[in-house]
Amino acid sequence: MTTVFVLNGPNLGRLGSREPDVYGGGTLVDLRETIDAHVSGLSGANPISIDFRQTDSETELISWLHEAVDTGSPVIINPAAFTHYSYALRDAAAQVTSAGLTLVEVHITNPHSREEFRHTSVISGVATGVVAGFGFDSYIVGLDAVARRLS
Amino acid sequence: MTTVFVLNGPNLGRLGSREPDVYGGGTLVDLRETIDAHVSGLSGANPISIDFRQTDSETELISWLHEAVDTGSPVIINPAAFTHYSYALRDAAAQVTSAGLTLVEVHITNPHSREEFRHTSVISGVATGVVAGFGFDSYIVGLDAVARRLS
Amino acid sequence: MTTVFVLNGPNLGRLGSREPDVYGGGTLVDLRETIDAHVSGLSGANPISIDFRQTDSETELISWLHEAVDTGSPVIINPAAFTHYSYALRDAAAQVTSAGLTLVEVHITNPHSREEFRHTSVISGVATGVVAGFGFDSYIVGLDAVARRLS
Amino acid sequence: MTTVFVLNGPNLGRLGSREPDVYGGGTLVDLRETIDAHVSGLSGANPISIDFRQTDSETELISWLHEAVDTGSPVIINPAAFTHYSYALRDAAAQVTSAGLTLVEVHITNPHSREEFRHTSVISGVATGVVAGFGFDSYIVGLDAVARRLS
Amino acid sequence: MTTVFVLNGPNLGRLGSREPDVYGGGTLVDLRETIDAHVSGLSGANPISIDFRQTDSETELISWLHEAVDTGSPVIINPAAFTHYSYALRDAAAQVTSAGLTLVEVHITNPHSREEFRHTSVISGVATGVVAGFGFDSYIVGLDAVARRLS
Amino acid sequence: MTTVFVLNGPNLGRLGSREPDVYGGGTLVDLRETIDAHVSGLSGANPISIDFRQTDSETELISWLHEAVDTGSPVIINPAAFTHYSYALRDAAAQVTSAGLTLVEVHITNPHSREEFRHTSVISGVATGVVAGFGFDSYIVGLDAVARRLS
Amino acid sequence: MTTVFVLNGPNLGRLGSREPDVYGGGTLVDLRETIDAHVSGLSGANPISIDFRQTDSETELISWLHEAVDTGSPVIINPAAFTHYSYALRDAAAQVTSAGLTLVEVHITNPHSREEFRHTSVISGVATGVVAGFGFDSYIVGLDAVARRLS
Amino acid sequence: MTTVFVLNGPNLGRLGSREPDVYGGGTLVDLRETIDAHVSGLSGANPISIDFRQTDSETELISWLHEAVDTGSPVIINPAAFTHYSYALRDAAAQVTSAGLTLVEVHITNPHSREEFRHTSVISGVATGVVAGFGFDSYIVGLDAVARRLS
Amino acid sequence: MTTVFVLNGPNLGRLGSREPDVYGGGTLVDLRETIDAHVSGLSGANPISIDFRQTDSETELISWLHEAVDTGSPVIINPAAFTHYSYALRDAAAQVTSAGLTLVEVHITNPHSREEFRHTSVISGVATGVVAGFGFDSYIVGLDAVARRLS
Amino acid sequence: MTTVFVLNGPNLGRLGSREPDVYGGGTLVDLRETIDAHVSGLSGANPISIDFRQTDSETELISWLHEAVDTGSPVIINPAAFTHYSYALRDAAAQVTSAGLTLVEVHITNPHSREEFRHTSVISGVATGVVAGFGFDSYIVGLDAVARRLS
Amino acid sequence: MTTVFVLNGPNLGRLGSREPDVYGGGTLVDLRETIDAHVSGLSGANPISIDFRQTDSETELISWLHEAVDTGSPVIINPAAFTHYSYALRDAAAQVTSAGLTLVEVHITNPHSREEFRHTSVISGVATGVVAGFGFDSYIVGLDAVARRLS
Amino acid sequence: MTTVFVLNGPNLGRLGSREPDVYGGGTLVDLRETIDAHVSGLSGANPISIDFRQTDSETELISWLHEAVDTGSPVIINPAAFTHYSYALRDAAAQVTSAGLTLVEVHITNPHSREEFRHTSVISGVATGVVAGFGFDSYIVGLDAVARRLS
Repeated sequence: MTTVFVLNGPNLGRLGSREPDVYGGGTLVDLRETIDAHVSGLSGANPISIDFRQTDSETELISWLHEAVDTGSPVIINPAAFTHYSYALRDAAAQVTSAGLTLVEVHITNPHSREEFRHTSVISGVATGVVAGFGFDSYIVGLDAVARRLS
Repeated sequence: MTTVFVLNGPNLGRLGSREPDVYGGGTLVDLRETIDAHVSGLSGANPISIDFRQTDSETELISWLHEAVDTGSPVIINPAAFTHYSYALRDAAAQVTSAGLTLVEVHITNPHSREEFRHTSVISGVATGVVAGFGFDSYIVGLDAVARRLS
Repeated sequence: MTTVFVLNGPNLGRLGSREPDVYGGGTLVDLRETIDAHVSGLSGANPISIDFRQTDSETELISWLHEAVDTGSPVIINPAAFTHYSYALRDAAAQVTSAGLTLVEVHITNPHSREEFRHTSVISGVATGVVAGFGFDSYIVGLDAVARRLS
Repeated sequence: MTTVFVLNGPNLGRLGSREPDVYGGGTLVDLRETIDAHVSGLSGANPISIDFRQTDSETELISWLHEAVDTGSPVIINPAAFTHYSYALRDAAAQVTSAGLTLVEVHITNPHSREEFRHTSVISGVATGVVAGFGFDSYIVGLDAVARRLS
Repeated sequence: MTTVFVLNGPNLGRLGSREPDVYGGGTLVDLRETIDAHVSGLSGANPISIDFRQTDSETELISWLHEAVDTGSPVIINPAAFTHYSYALRDAAAQVTSAGLTLVEVHITNPHSREEFRHTSVISGVATGVVAGFGFDSYIVGLDAVARRLS
Repeated sequence: MTTVFVLNGPNLGRLGSREPDVYGGGTLVDLRETIDAHVSGLSGANPISIDFRQTDSETELISWLHEAVDTGSPVIINPAAFTHYSYALRDAAAQVTSAGLTLVEVHITNPHSREEFRHTSVISGVATGVVAGFGFDSYIVGLDAVARRLS
Repeated sequence: MTTVFVLNGPNLGRLGSREPDVYGGGTLVDLRETIDAHVSGLSGANPISIDFRQTDSETELISWLHEAVDTGSPVIINPAAFTHYSYALRDAAAQVTSAGLTLVEVHITNPHSREEFRHTSVISGVATGVVAGFGFDSYIVGLDAVARRLS
Repeated sequence: MTTVFVLNGPNLGRLGSREPDVYGGGTLVDLRETIDAHVSGLSGANPISIDFRQTDSETELISWLHEAVDTGSPVIINPAAFTHYSYALRDAAAQVTSAGLTLVEVHITNPHSREEFRHTSVISGVATGVVAGFGFDSYIVGLDAVARRLS
Repeated sequence: MTTVFVLNGPNLGRLGSREPDVYGGGTLVDLRETIDAHVSGLSGANPISIDFRQTDSETELISWLHEAVDTGSPVIINPAAFTHYSYALRDAAAQVTSAGLTLVEVHITNPHSREEFRHTSVISGVATGVVAGFGFDSYIVGLDAVARRLS
Repeated sequence: MTTVFVLNGPNLGRLGSREPDVYGGGTLVDLRETIDAHVSGLSGANPISIDFRQTDSETELISWLHEAVDTGSPVIINPAAFTHYSYALRDAAAQVTSAGLTLVEVHITNPHSREEFRHTSVISGVATGVVAGFGFDSYIVGLDAVARRLS
Repeated sequence: MTTVFVLNGPNLGRLGSREPDVYGGGTLVDLRETIDAHVSGLSGANPISIDFRQTDSETELISWLHEAVDTGSPVIINPAAFTHYSYALRDAAAQVTSAGLTLVEVHITNPHSREEFRHTSVISGVATGVVAGFGFDSYIVGLDAVARRLS
Repeated sequence: MTTVFVLNGPNLGRLGSREPDVYGGGTLVDLRETIDAHVSGLSGANPISIDFRQTDSETELISWLHEAVDTGSPVIINPAAFTHYSYALRDAAAQVTSAGLTLVEVHITNPHSREEFRHTSVISGVATGVVAGFGFDSYIVGLDAVARRLS
């Protein structure tokens, strides 16, 4: 069984109360349950389990990526605002993909239809792929992409 | 039954022979069959059929988006190189999403890990969402995102 | 009698249904009739007739400008999104004005109060003049400007 | 009867002697008479009178825009070189249009075929519309646009 | 007793009628009375009186800053749109602060949450300090800052 | 009684020893006492208490802003160097103001008269207002602005 | 015998009448005949024949490049205005050179001594080489370069 | 006898008291006397008289340049801060030189060794020549240049 | 005896396994031992001891620089990815050098021969000096530079 | 007989040993012999002789261009790295072409497919034409272009 | 007696034949004689002699500036195209002015009314002053400025 | 024994007298002796000798780098102002490192704490490593880095 890390960056613990017209009314717990439900519905040769985490700390997020490398875990990551400036996170993400593991950058909203500064990602260049704009479904289809690469 | 338009832009008819180390060795026919196989495997309340097309013409691509608006069809679009400069395509894509239809921009490769000019999309700002970097699976998970929004 | 070409670029065939809060609810047929009505009301030494066309094709728009040169026809052109990047159209437009014919670039809306990319026109530099922001009246007063230059 | 303010900015009092190959040989008096002749030839339900002014003063131009708001007068304005930097004029012009009055920015020449700095207007973004490049006719067709919006 | 100059730049005489949703419904007279009321409520060793002025003229605003230098008066200045381009005003403001007098740049609104061009101030670099975003209170707390520096 | 959070970012714990010619010789303890003295001298219908904190951690600063939202506390924040790049902090600050709470960005010095990189704030766009350049008094007048908004 | 494709982009069909002081008075037929005459004069082990075409269509130009790949034909291409923005053409041209075929970008005039926008080519980066500024001779020496690479 | 206009822009009336370490301790009166003394020492076929003026008004400076054109007077102008943004002044200055009159832009200090914004002059492009960095002598040698051109 | 802080930033704990073709195969422990061996081999009047640390935390790195100031310790710092954006770290580093202590920025690789974003350091401007490109030897010769400055 | 100067700039004397995978394994002597062989094979009314030179000195290269003007010699020049910054060389090259002589800028490689800084040429704007990307053949076809212009 | 170095940079030896419509028809010898004549006409306490030189070599120009420092000679320098890029020359010029000697940058033409690249000088920032646009008189009045500073 | 070239660029012959507050009071002879003393103190398996040179000539500096390639000598180079623009020097330096020899770019001062133009090096990208900011010690530790790579 492969454990996929689903990592959430700063301010994502505030989902539900934070600008619900932008991010929707679902909470991080709702997100987790949505993902769990989806994964339990998956079947096939390569079962997946989810390790779902959130932090406002750049340091912790980096350490989780190191952990993913060490445990050989694919990664779904929503870097939130770190997307736009954290080259330290980029260097950590690059280790995941250069170890041959899949790393998917996801965004709940579509950053390109928001403020100018959200149009730039310092992470995308070292990610396997990017999914953005589908609400919580960004995670779901990101996961499916991981699952398909595992099989 | 909802028909989803899967639209492919310039040079994508050359898949398989065009830089296979970048785009993979699969052809456009392979892509079509992969998608068909996936869709036929889908089940649920909202059956989907696929209208799969390719063109090297900006004009034709625009007309297909107009057709999508008129027929109420969600769109998966790989604008290929038009991604980077065709504001005419953007204006057509904007009509799709402002008609309440889902439009997903997909890319086989991850544009952010390639040449600088591929980092800018004039389409993303009016798309519902973006999926990039998963090879043919970018279409598959993009389709799943459409399917989930339909249900 | 002078025939004035009134040329409309990509997506303008969708007027009326396309973002009516931006472009108004009138259709391209309405626009044509408005122009015809105005022209039939004109009197004077230099009667004008209108050749009204629309296309989503850069190639066709270029050919119409070539035709205008060959027939000595002044041009009203709404290049729509081509305004912002089609240097091929610019080169064709330059032939009109360097042949001593009037070419008026018109826009239904005021591009300067919209998205940043609409603030730049690659056509204006070779146009005789520009009219923007008056809805369908942009064509009407553009036509009047042509008429005055003919007399 | 509606009084339309026709406001001219810096150096426009020098028309006729100032670079006649660029601006033509007509003087400001000629311009005024051309406009008066045109207006007296207009007929219809909404008679128009013209209040024609010129100043080299940013302050006076601003005060005239304030006066236009207070008297409910539409405005034709050739901001001349203020076009390119006077945000104070922009703020005054914005009051005209946000009061629901028409404000037309006009230019005798086509700024986009001249020096680079003339390609940028800080006024256009808050104007109703723009007319440029038709010589004195820029005012005439701008006036016609105003007249059409009044009727 | 120290007289503090409270200087208001272009279009601020229109407060109350100008975009009240942006600037609030209070007029310049209201602002003056609010300030007077606040100052009369101040007590302490250094009594303050207010010299409250408004002008749409860059020249007059410059002359008032010269007067402030000559009379040793601290300055509260809302340069309005001059903020973004008037280097002449900057040079005058620099004389105030290099004479050891306090000069506070105030803004009713928060320029950084408005149009891009309002994000740049050519005045701030030579001001003692900046207060922005508190409506009329920007003046009040700016005045308090002056008062505290005087004591 | 309303508790106002007064939050200080990285390196501000070093006040007094850190470049005293730039930041003054007062320590963070001095700043706290200055603020406490000022607040205890305030009177009126809306008593204020202060919760004064400092951290070098972006994560902790974010969590304090979350706490401010949860407790309905207005915020005075000196983001120090985070001002110039921490979009994560910006996203947290935006939650404070979109919750209807006042958030004031303060700076001891005037960033616009220092190095170029200090001229840009990624926080200001989502702050209620900004106060800069008055030394410790920036906090005091920021607090007064908060107090006035509370009454 | 090797067939060399000589491909001409938009507006080149207008040679002779289009700005003859810039492009010379020769027509496209003249150009074709000049090339034919030159080629018939060539001798050697590797005879060359010419397939000379012109189009105003980006789509057609792309399809001709695909055809060149399929037939193993070297290419002389004058992309005209497409030079400056058609990334779709670039992607097609890249297929020619990555197939090991020679592709020469030619220009009649020297783009670097003309308007700023003509200084940038999105094609050059994937071309084998570039020849510009020699009038019709740009094609002739481009052909010679192809011929030399064939031998 | 030729009258040379010596025109001084904003804040130059403050010479002597304004940042004397930058501009020197001499006043505008001193400058005038220095120039008068120099001119009275000149001899030759083309006697010169000086019309020395200063204003903080852009409008007045423009009118003086118009006057220079009308009276055929060469101009020495120190545009002070207007140098960096007043395109209205530029347009007025262009009239002087296109009338065949000499216009010399002078600066007391060397703008290129000061703040970045002082490195750009919108006036220089239409001036006959520029003299900067010699203190009051910038005017003197500028005058000599005028005198030499007159003879 | 002087203790030199040798501080390592984010992802440097991964040396050896992280992109060994870029950073070499040595681990952080190897680096520490290499440095210790070098230092023990030094002789002279000013013995040096090493305090070697690594962290992925910006906060911790800042606190170590504060500690260096308080203990009067020279610093060798490899800020890793923080190099490119952490102005908070810059402000902390500036305290070290303005306290008269040596701070050397070191890099294992040569950032100028890598990605564009690595060409910019926000730290260098406040460092005593920079050493880059020599692998682990960057630390060694950086240390020697510190040692020479101590003697 | 016309003597054509073939001038080679800095580091071109190192051909053969310098990055042979980029520039090929041929030496400068090989290049000279290739050119001589080609020229001796030319026939026609206008015989050509070659004056082949190389220098690492900007000064010498400039003097050779002066010599070309004085002797009426067409020029083939490979300015090597001077291409990207030597405005002094540009000024010298401009003298060649404004004297009515042909000057061809040649490059062995295609600069547009190499580092960013090689995409800019300060010479091209004053050259007659440019040939790049054909290895030593760039010289040969450049020579042919010169020969054709002579006949 | 003070010897003033009059130093001329690259291509200035070509005066008279080089673009005479831009630089005039006078030769470098004419310039030298004009200056000599002017200097011999000067009288006063501080006699001046001229050391007039020209070179196309950056190295030689630098060495002459070193010589000026060593001999305490003021400098008139026309750096020609070196103006726009030679930081090595800038560093040499800075030694002249930091030695307390006058260094005047002169230009025959007005660079600001020519190509864009001529608008930037890397020398001006370390020069005492600048004179441009007066033809050979730029040297004469530059010399007068030097003479006045000597007395 | 390995001979290390220590190469010094323009104006470095002026050390000691040139801005001693920036570069220190030591002369180039002092630098040479410091280096010699250091080298003679080195011991080990790979003895080093120094070939110390200085030139103001870009050409000579290039030729010395060629010589280094031919003699297999490692290089310490202080390119001085050439650092910022000499791509010709870059191309020569690239030959050294691509020949497998060490090339260290050294600077006496820290360019990043000086003028903006000194922040860019066109050499660093092809150097083995960079040492800056340690005064003459930059050479010493650069040499040590070379020595360590030799052993």
